[in-house]
Formats: sequence, C-alpha cells, structure tokens
Amino acid sequence: MDLSNTPLKAKFRLGFLGAGQLARMSGLQAFRYGLQIGVFSDRPENEPVQFMTPHSETGSFDSVDDMAAFAENCDVLTLENEFISSDILKKTQAKSGTSIFPAPESFALIENKLIEKQTFERAGIPVTPYQLVKNEDDIKAFGEKHGWPYLLKSSKGGYDGYGNETVADMKEARQAFENLGGNKGQDILAEAFVDFTHELAVQVARNETGHVVYPCCETVQEDHICVAVKSPAPVSEAVRQKARKLAVKATEAIDGKGIFAFEFFLTTDGDILLNESAPRPHNSGHYTIEGCVTSQFENHVRAVLGLPLGSTELRAPAVAMINLLGTDQREAQVDIKSDTLAADDGHLHIYGKLDSRPGRKMGHFTLLGKNMNHTYREAQKLTQAIRI
Amino acid sequence: MDLSNTPLKAKFRLGFLGAGQLARMSGLQAFRYGLQIGVFSDRPENEPVQFMTPHSETGSFDSVDDMAAFAENCDVLTLENEFISSDILKKTQAKSGTSIFPAPESFALIENKLIEKQTFERAGIPVTPYQLVKNEDDIKAFGEKHGWPYLLKSSKGGYDGYGNETVADMKEARQAFENLGGNKGQDILAEAFVDFTHELAVQVARNETGHVVYPCCETVQEDHICVAVKSPAPVSEAVRQKARKLAVKATEAIDGKGIFAFEFFLTTDGDILLNESAPRPHNSGHYTIEGCVTSQFENHVRAVLGLPLGSTELRAPAVAMINLLGTDQREAQVDIKSDTLAADDGHLHIYGKLDSRPGRKMGHFTLLGKNMNHTYREAQKLTQAIRI
Repeated sequence: MDLSNTPLKAKFRLGFLGAGQLARMSGLQAFRYGLQIGVFSDRPENEPVQFMTPHSETGSFDSVDDMAAFAENCDVLTLENEFISSDILKKTQAKSGTSIFPAPESFALIENKLIEKQTFERAGIPVTPYQLVKNEDDIKAFGEKHGWPYLLKSSKGGYDGYGNETVADMKEARQAFENLGGNKGQDILAEAFVDFTHELAVQVARNETGHVVYPCCETVQEDHICVAVKSPAPVSEAVRQKARKLAVKATEAIDGKGIFAFEFFLTTDGDILLNESAPRPHNSGHYTIEGCVTSQFENHVRAVLGLPLGSTELRAPAVAMINLLGTDQREAQVDIKSDTLAADDGHLHIYGKLDSRPGRKMGHFTLLGKNMNHTYREAQKLTQAIRI
Repeated sequence: MDLSNTPLKAKFRLGFLGAGQLARMSGLQAFRYGLQIGVFSDRPENEPVQFMTPHSETGSFDSVDDMAAFAENCDVLTLENEFISSDILKKTQAKSGTSIFPAPESFALIENKLIEKQTFERAGIPVTPYQLVKNEDDIKAFGEKHGWPYLLKSSKGGYDGYGNETVADMKEARQAFENLGGNKGQDILAEAFVDFTHELAVQVARNETGHVVYPCCETVQEDHICVAVKSPAPVSEAVRQKARKLAVKATEAIDGKGIFAFEFFLTTDGDILLNESAPRPHNSGHYTIEGCVTSQFENHVRAVLGLPLGSTELRAPAVAMINLLGTDQREAQVDIKSDTLAADDGHLHIYGKLDSRPGRKMGHFTLLGKNMNHTYREAQKLTQAIRI
C-alpha cells in the first residue's frame, strides 16, 4: 500500500478532547511523527499537557460550541476520557467538519455501563452478572439472586473506584443508591461480586488497515485503584489467548477505530468475564512504552491517523509497571533514591502534575526483566522509597 | 544516594539554546520526566520545537541580553548547537544566574576546530594532522608535508560539509581560503586527508554522578553528510573498545557535564584518530532512542539535571539508522509505503519541519535486528521509497 498523501505533515494537528496524562503520552508520540497537538480541557487550572503545546483551549464537555471551535483548528480529534456524551461528540463532529476517532457511533455503544454490557453481551462476550435497578424491589431481588454483598454503580462517569459502592445489605444499598444519584434519575447498575483469581487487561488497536492486540497483562488493584501491572499475566497461555480473542471481538463489536482497553476477571471457575472497557489508552498499557516494540500511545496515534499498526511484541520475558501514587498534599516533587533511577532497564515517567495528593496518579515506573516474580519484586522495591 | 529535592518537579524548566530537532528530541525526554521546556531560537520562522511549548523566545545568539532574559525564566540551560561563543555563554550565565550545561568553561575548550584539536592533543588523544594556515606559504607547506588534496576548514561554524573545502592544488586552495573567510580574519585550518576504512562515533554522558558510554557505531557518510549509522560498528571489538576509551578520555579532558559525541577515523593502518566532537546529542546517536536501554536524549536530560545516568546497553544485536533527507522543495509531507511503517521493530521519526528541501534532515528511521548486513539492507530498502 502506497501511503502518499499521509497525514504525516508538519501542519497536521491532532486534537485531544481531555487534558490528562493520556493526552500527554499520546502527544509525545504525535510529536515523534512530526505532528502538532491541540488540547481541549474542561478545567480552569493548568494541566501538564498544556505545557506541551501553544494550542490549548478550555471549555465545557457539554458545549458543542466550545468543542467545535476547538475542533475547527484541528485536523482530527481523539478521546482522552469517556466523560463526553456520544450525542455531543456527534454534534461537535457535524458542526466542525473535523472527524473524531474513536467515532461517536462506536462510543455510543459503550458510553455508559448499562449500554456497554448490553453491547458486549449481544456480541457473545461474557460479562459480569448485572441488572439495572430502579427501586428497592430491584435492589432486593438482585441481592437474593446473586448474593450479598454486591456492587452498585452509577452507569456514567466512574473511574478508580469513584461511582462504585459495595453494599452488604438493604440499608447500605439504600444509602448507596442515594449517594450515586439513583433518586435523582441517574441510572444505577447492580453488579454481582465475582470470585476471581486475577484481573486481566488487553489493549487492542484497530483501524481500516487491520488490528493489533497487545499481550494479556494482569492488573493489580488495591482499593479499586490499579497499583501495578504484570505483562504477560501470570496465568496460562490458553487463558491469555482467550482474553486476547475476546478483546478483539469486543473491539469489532463497536467497530472501533483507535486504541481500546478491556479489563477482565479470571474467575475461580476459570471463566473470563469482561468487566470494563475504555475507548482510549489505558493505565494497564503504560508498560507498553518500553515493554513492547510499539507502545499503546504510538498505536493510538497510528490508528486514529489511519496508518498501519505496529508490532505489539514484548521486549522482555517479564515487564512490571508500578503506578507512582501521590504520597503527600504538596507541590509536585519527586523524592527518589539514585538506585531507582540508575536501575538497568528501569524507566521512570512523571506526568508533570503541579500538585500532589495522596493516591493521585503522579507517574509510573516500568522495569523489564527475565523472570516475573523477580522483576515485580524488584520494581516494588525500587519504587517503595519514592515520595511524590 | 538519596535524591530528595531532585529537579524532578513540575515547575522545573529546562531551557534549550537552539531550536532544532535535537532540542525537540531532548524535550520529549524532559516531558517524560514531568518537566517543562523553554526554547531560544535565533531564527524568525517557526521551528518545530516551538510547537511543543508555550515558552519560546527569539533573539540573537550574539546578545547576552536576549539570552539572559530567556535564561531568567528557566531553571537550567543546555546547548543544542555550537554556534554561541563561550564568552557569550559565560556572560549569559553570570547575568541570569541560571546555570548552563555543558558549562561554558567546557565548551571553551572545543569551541572552534583549532582549540578543539589542541585540547584533545594535549590530553593525549590522537587527532587528524592539522595546521592553522595564515597565508600562501602555510598553505603550500602543508600540501608539501601532508600531500594534496587536503581539506581547508573555517575553524568556527561548519556542519554537514558546510565550512569545509577539499583543495587539490594551490589555485583551489587560494579560492577556498577566500571562500571560507580567510582574507577577512577567519581562522582557517588545513587538515590532512586520512585514508580510513570506517568513520566511527561514540556518545558519552557524564556528570557528577559518573559517566556512561554508548556502543561504538559506524557513521556512513555521503558528500560529508551522515546518511546512516550502524551500531555496533562492524569493526573488531578491540577497535570499538579503544574508541570508547578515547571518547571517555575526551569527555574528561573538557570536564564535560552533559551528552557528548565524538567522531573518529579508523585509518587503513588501524589507528583511531579523533575527527570532531559535539557538546550535545548527535545524529550518530539517534539510533539510541529504540536501540539502547536509555537514549542519548534521556541521558542528556539526566546529565544536565545531575541525575544518575541510565544503561547504554544495546537492545538488539544490530541496529541500523537511516537519515531521511528531504527529496523535494515543498511543504513538508511524508510519502511512504505501508510496509515501512508496519515493519517489525522499525521506528519512524519525523522532525516536524514545515518545509522540505533536497538534502535537509527531515527525520530518521531506526531498525532493530539480529544481523547487521541484513538489518542495514532491510532498513535501506524500507526507506528507499520514502519521499519527504
């Protein structure tokens, strides 16, 4: 295929709807291809990616006018989060004439937790047992059918444990239903607890040239926050391949153009259930920057631009990624030991956020090695002393 | 070593004196560490790195005032070329209070070709035979001693073959002496042609924490322009180690803090002669981005910030880098075949220059492989069809 007239020209501008660390890391790849980037933020304060471009604008994710004005100065737009409704995305695209990838039509199929589960269930992908709950009877019935405790989730907007509550009985469920906005018309989903041995994740990049699928990795969660990733996941090759196949199937189910991440539970019975999806680069794929031949961010840019996708092969038998969470409420600053920085094949990434707070994702550290147990322990040890 | 209070904080700004592709690639690494960048350009037109930051200023490399004003908004400055005199750098540092690395005192020892050769000769590093030529008698005497043809070079400011002329006889030498500014007070150096089998290059990063040295690579030159790099250089291990030792010695000779590149001739007699040095990242080290565990750009940033330096180990037995030179006079645009982009472990870098012209360095392509002959041929084949 001759790609004369590619988007690879210096004046081509890739616009990000959203201004977090994902835009930052995809932006670095856009720069590597000689492109310019634009950033649309919905927050008044300075976001780190705004220090990476003269082209940043601030506005509301609910305003077609704001986003269309931004879009008109970009050649293509991409998503950096899932907080904008597909309807607003469609109208922004129509008004500005600037394409958005993943397409609003794809995003519409996963834009809230209810629709997402229905979409993937329809495609024959096993998902965790769930139910839309509208009242006390529904809440009670779900508990009786699937057992207590279970999860209540607002169908829109949750991440890193926000928007989810674990409920052990009717009293907690009533409170959670109210906290999550159930009494104010917010759709609330009940989701059964699944007994699992591992949480797995797979990224898929896909566009009109084909698709590539990343290794199946394990995400290690504490308090609903991903604290570490191991790739490949320490499960059987058969399980890994099955998860990868499901991830590709899920991407095809939404006709996705872009980079997508899928999180799965590997149940104690050996089943693989799709838990969540994201139409963008994902924390579970940060390890791919050094850990794979082509990173999720590079394939994000390639996918959105319609370019052929790059190899997802692992660069080492074991890759461990540790999230660096804020430890203090203070101006961002990295206190670190020199052996962490000097570690052979250890790679530090700091997101440039101006303020640190406990639990905030401030950066990550990736270590490549030969043996997962050793590499993971070493990565934990090297990052333990970091205060950030 | 505990690095509490590192420069790794979001408001720390690394300033580049110079705005070419080297600032761009080092800047990408600074972003990876969460830092901000500033860029000082001496050109009126837009430089690609200026699309990577809201902090860019334009002025003269001869003006202490211009550069000090820029420096005051940065936490540390680094060099991106060798076009600023050490005297101006010293005054800029003194006036702004912002440190410059490599230090002006280090740069003073290599700032023109005459001083550079004297510095390294004094340190016991073999250099190509040379002589400052002031008049016809000198020109004639050099030809008689070392043979015709030989090279005349202006002692300051040359790169990619500019500022050099090959002279075969007195008539050509007279003309070249005038072209190079010899009659207007410019110092002109005569340099003997050396019969060599390979041109080699080695990068060294060094600061107060120690030094690291990159593999010895071969630079393939056509018409005085580097068109490709092979790493490791296809010469004996003994030669490679000797070149690396000389490169470290040369870095120590100028007490260098930063990243430095050294180019050598391997003569037909098996001698290694230092040809040129650069106090900055260098085209010969672009392959290190994917080819080594830590790139020259990352170690550039680490060195200047006083952080421990990263491993320079090769990621593959054979790494080939092909410079993508402009083929047309036009708005920059990359016409490429899909198999080039889809190549396993092939990595495309485009510099984002707005205009292309024949011979201009517009980007590069790095291929990792198992066998140098095969990898190099494959890289040439994959890049042959690119029009840029």
